[in-house]
Amino acid sequence: MTLGEALFRPRAVALIGASGDPAKNTARPQRYLRKHGYSGRIVPINPGRKEVLGETAYPALADAPVDVDHAFIMVEDVERALEDCGRKGVPVASIYSDGFADAGPAGEQRQRRLVERAKALGVRLLGPNSMGVVDLRRGLALTVNAILEMDSLPAGDASIVSQSGTMLGTVLSRGAARGLGFAKLVSVGNECDLGVGELVELLVEDSDTRVILLFLETIRDPERLARAARTAHAAGKPVVAYKLGRSALGQALARSHTGALAGADAAVDAYFRDCGIVRVDLLETLVEIAPLLRGRRPPDLARPGRVAVVTTTGGGAATVVDRLGLAGIEAVGPRPDAPIHDLTMTATPRVYQETLEKLLESSPCDSVLATVGSSAQFHPGLAIEPILAASAKQSAKPLAVFLTPHAERSLSLLAQRGIPAFRTPEACADAFSAYFSWVSPRKPTQLPAPPLRQDAFELAEALGIPAATRAIAHAPDYAHPIAYPVAVKVLDAEHKTETGGVALDVMNKDQLLEKIAPWSKNAVLVQKMEQGLAEAIVGYRDDPVVGPLILVGAGGTLAELYRDFSLALAPVTAEEAERMIERVKGLAMIRGYRNLPRGDVKALARAVADFSRLALVPGRPVAEAEINPLIVKADGVVAVDARLVLKG
Amino acid sequence: MTLGEALFRPRAVALIGASGDPAKNTARPQRYLRKHGYSGRIVPINPGRKEVLGETAYPALADAPVDVDHAFIMVEDVERALEDCGRKGVPVASIYSDGFADAGPAGEQRQRRLVERAKALGVRLLGPNSMGVVDLRRGLALTVNAILEMDSLPAGDASIVSQSGTMLGTVLSRGAARGLGFAKLVSVGNECDLGVGELVELLVEDSDTRVILLFLETIRDPERLARAARTAHAAGKPVVAYKLGRSALGQALARSHTGALAGADAAVDAYFRDCGIVRVDLLETLVEIAPLLRGRRPPDLARPGRVAVVTTTGGGAATVVDRLGLAGIEAVGPRPDAPIHDLTMTATPRVYQETLEKLLESSPCDSVLATVGSSAQFHPGLAIEPILAASAKQSAKPLAVFLTPHAERSLSLLAQRGIPAFRTPEACADAFSAYFSWVSPRKPTQLPAPPLRQDAFELAEALGIPAATRAIAHAPDYAHPIAYPVAVKVLDAEHKTETGGVALDVMNKDQLLEKIAPWSKNAVLVQKMEQGLAEAIVGYRDDPVVGPLILVGAGGTLAELYRDFSLALAPVTAEEAERMIERVKGLAMIRGYRNLPRGDVKALARAVADFSRLALVPGRPVAEAEINPLIVKADGVVAVDARLVLKG
Repeated sequence: MTLGEALFRPRAVALIGASGDPAKNTARPQRYLRKHGYSGRIVPINPGRKEVLGETAYPALADAPVDVDHAFIMVEDVERALEDCGRKGVPVASIYSDGFADAGPAGEQRQRRLVERAKALGVRLLGPNSMGVVDLRRGLALTVNAILEMDSLPAGDASIVSQSGTMLGTVLSRGAARGLGFAKLVSVGNECDLGVGELVELLVEDSDTRVILLFLETIRDPERLARAARTAHAAGKPVVAYKLGRSALGQALARSHTGALAGADAAVDAYFRDCGIVRVDLLETLVEIAPLLRGRRPPDLARPGRVAVVTTTGGGAATVVDRLGLAGIEAVGPRPDAPIHDLTMTATPRVYQETLEKLLESSPCDSVLATVGSSAQFHPGLAIEPILAASAKQSAKPLAVFLTPHAERSLSLLAQRGIPAFRTPEACADAFSAYFSWVSPRKPTQLPAPPLRQDAFELAEALGIPAATRAIAHAPDYAHPIAYPVAVKVLDAEHKTETGGVALDVMNKDQLLEKIAPWSKNAVLVQKMEQGLAEAIVGYRDDPVVGPLILVGAGGTLAELYRDFSLALAPVTAEEAERMIERVKGLAMIRGYRNLPRGDVKALARAVADFSRLALVPGRPVAEAEINPLIVKADGVVAVDARLVLKG
Repeated sequence: MTLGEALFRPRAVALIGASGDPAKNTARPQRYLRKHGYSGRIVPINPGRKEVLGETAYPALADAPVDVDHAFIMVEDVERALEDCGRKGVPVASIYSDGFADAGPAGEQRQRRLVERAKALGVRLLGPNSMGVVDLRRGLALTVNAILEMDSLPAGDASIVSQSGTMLGTVLSRGAARGLGFAKLVSVGNECDLGVGELVELLVEDSDTRVILLFLETIRDPERLARAARTAHAAGKPVVAYKLGRSALGQALARSHTGALAGADAAVDAYFRDCGIVRVDLLETLVEIAPLLRGRRPPDLARPGRVAVVTTTGGGAATVVDRLGLAGIEAVGPRPDAPIHDLTMTATPRVYQETLEKLLESSPCDSVLATVGSSAQFHPGLAIEPILAASAKQSAKPLAVFLTPHAERSLSLLAQRGIPAFRTPEACADAFSAYFSWVSPRKPTQLPAPPLRQDAFELAEALGIPAATRAIAHAPDYAHPIAYPVAVKVLDAEHKTETGGVALDVMNKDQLLEKIAPWSKNAVLVQKMEQGLAEAIVGYRDDPVVGPLILVGAGGTLAELYRDFSLALAPVTAEEAERMIERVKGLAMIRGYRNLPRGDVKALARAVADFSRLALVPGRPVAEAEINPLIVKADGVVAVDARLVLKG
């Protein structure tokens, strides 16, 4: 029996701590398994009762007369339950009980001990603090989540892995209300053993799952998840993430909530892009997006996405087109001055269908969006018939639908036929935005390991990045070999421009002595005065969550004020670095903006790529490194300030 | 009979062009009026029939045996129908027929003639291209909008005026699905006579209306709407707008769709702020926000808003808190490291209620948000009982609710009690963001009219803004009285830095002659070389939609790249200008950012206020004017370049 089988298709489940009081949470798994038609054996374990909710109960797991594939632990003494599982040969246990990493340092220690013991016993663990596992196609409702109170839930082919157990109910109930079903659902809790990454791998192997959805508060094992996402990509299964922590507030929360450090959001974005995970912004997009991605490959667009919008309702289409525009998506209309195919006056079902088909076949768009007005509410069948007909012909382009009124029946009909449909203009635009920015996982770059130096300038040079000619001038006469004009700097201060420890355009020795007098330093750095067309910042950081990152931004104070930078997982190639540079607004100035003189973007890209190779230094000793500014000239670049922080 | 009475409470309505075929759009008003229990007289006008859908019909309006308060015109020959209305003494006619300003230049002319004739006849017009008027409290369903097919629609105390007729159905159906009702609904169509502004005024007088909602594609009469919004504010009725045209795409659309020029979105924002209109970002926020604002005054906050979030479901609260953070709203938790009041383990209904009450009474928050999980779906009464109880005590602070699962019954129960509740974390955060940025209409500034000059520098000086000492130097010797170093510029080119027609730091006559030689100009502008701590741009524009605008931004190319500016309706006071400056990120550099030397923000604010007085020049002859850059020094400001464009 494989792990996936034990987790999702157990022949027998033990409910350790099953309550006979149907009002209690600990009675739910048993009630739900029965209610949703689980066909395997249910084994309630309860030391005080011979029978629980009509099922024969056993005082201890050892007394169970059958082999148990999956145990659900709801008792306080998790440790003892685990020992019982080990003795009984149970391959996997889901732990609902909490009081582990969710409960401070003592809980963390308790969790570590539990994991060690489980390894020794050969029991795989889901949780602790997990709400369990659901397989809607098989009636496996091994969960305490109240959503299973619903009499029936539609089954679909998207599965979800969630770090919040309650959000499973949120996603399921919202999907069910509009006819969208799911396949498998897993609440991972503290991820002490089975984590998001491994579960994604299990879902890649699962033939019922075609799209994998993630609700994430943090990323606990980024390497495993990245590997899993690449495997999913290879198998043609899109992975979609909704991740908290976009605002500082959300980040603080994710931290306190999960006991894990949430990465800064831009780093998470770079990480998702790197391994081909699609990120959605709105919660409902996570519920609604699966049909848009199912069976598709990343479009890998290097330009804005283009949608052809067909409508019979002007106002409704305008709400979604306005939103598409905000997301940088282009609406391809019949004429340049008409961004919408408006059939308000001319629409027969036949014309509508033919318009859709024609656009799906031949128009210069990447996708087609059909907007439907009030008919979706009052004549669901009629309203969506042309869309169903048009979607019957296979097309490489997605055909999606936005319904302006509240129209659950139309949404259901579309869901049944696997056609992506959206409740709000915002989720619709968010889904398109996610789809168009979906890229294939980046192929690992094979590059030689670079050397390491203790001095930031020497390090830059060792990596192949030119640095300004420099020398250290010592008291009392501060002699140096650099030709004037020079820049003079204190040796040790960060943010030199603020503290005043820098003098530019120093023309001669007298000026030098005059400038540095107030600093009272025995030694100063003297550099050749460099000038160029723009200043850039190139940064490297070994992020505690997602690993080595490379950053390029506009230099100077403004870059920080505007948070104008581009981030990617390191290392990157020069070609990738060039695309990063294109995303930095402030560097438009050297890309030919308004006839300003062009800077050497290629040299900047090479410098970014070279710097990113710090990720390849054996043992990854560099915590942070930065060239700021890197001066970009018409021909070449030169580092005039640099900083290096080694680990520990 | 007042206009409002004729429009919303007609004793008799004439349906001109009523069809006897119930499947036709032109049969809808009659069907809907009956269906929804309109108690007045219905008078179908149809030259071919004696009876329409069971009602006695008349061949012409003149034949109607009663006085008609409101005519609904659905025939092609609108002109003739209007004459009939005039003869019959009908005070108001709503026109469903199209082919007017919605149909190109010929249609525009037709519309102009129609309006002239209506004025002469004393008939007020709604439309053309209007879907009509609905009063849900009185069963007045004088509309072709299919939403009235619904057997019953809940009534509420928010009324909506929409430039898109179909969006009325969108808003109504979405509201109805969650128990939120509306009072009056008006589709304004082309606004040939009765416009959004006048309708807002009518709704201010309407005792059934407590919140006024607007769905806008454009703003056709900004002065009237602003006046109406101020009247609404005085009457304590919040006005909320969802407006298309946020993206360039949406703007193009709004233009082509309505035949009116949509203003740039930032200008619209400034306009709304000026007259106290609350703007929402998401379509569903427009549906859901009314209970949050009902009976409240603008908070007029000069700092970020603060929400205390109480929850029994960690994941659900996190989705909304993350979103609040993105909107710049602070979550006030029990401790600095815990932004949420998490009652997951401790919540009895009593504890929940007491926590809410305590926060509403005494916490340093501006509002309280209760988050409810799965119980909202399965035990609606129980789940929201503590919220209902807490809301029973009057509080100055809003108490709002976010439900994580699909939970229409809970939403309905809350709607019935007038408690703001939201379906999605995004609409919830959007509503709070709208609420916290809601400000009272600005009081008109009484300032003397400034003088006008033909030269931009002289104009700045006449307004009280210092300009760099300057002179024009002529060929052949280019003599001038300005002390070196100087700046030299060509006289007529815009964007001088790009075309190369500018030389800075010119040290002497020889350098001057050398620099200007390639320009081949007979005269150049010579200025004292000015230096400061930062460059700002100060701009004035008489916007075709919203009128005079004043802009302040960071100077140089970056301001344009980052679209980093602050906009307000002109004129502004120096105090208001200072608040505008605070919103410009790039000017943080002179506000004490990172210990950089502080610039004279007060002088900059005075210059902004002075420049904004261009709005007061009699006849408003200035189309555009700009000082760029205005150099900000530690002490004072000085204009070193300026531009002026007079109208026509």
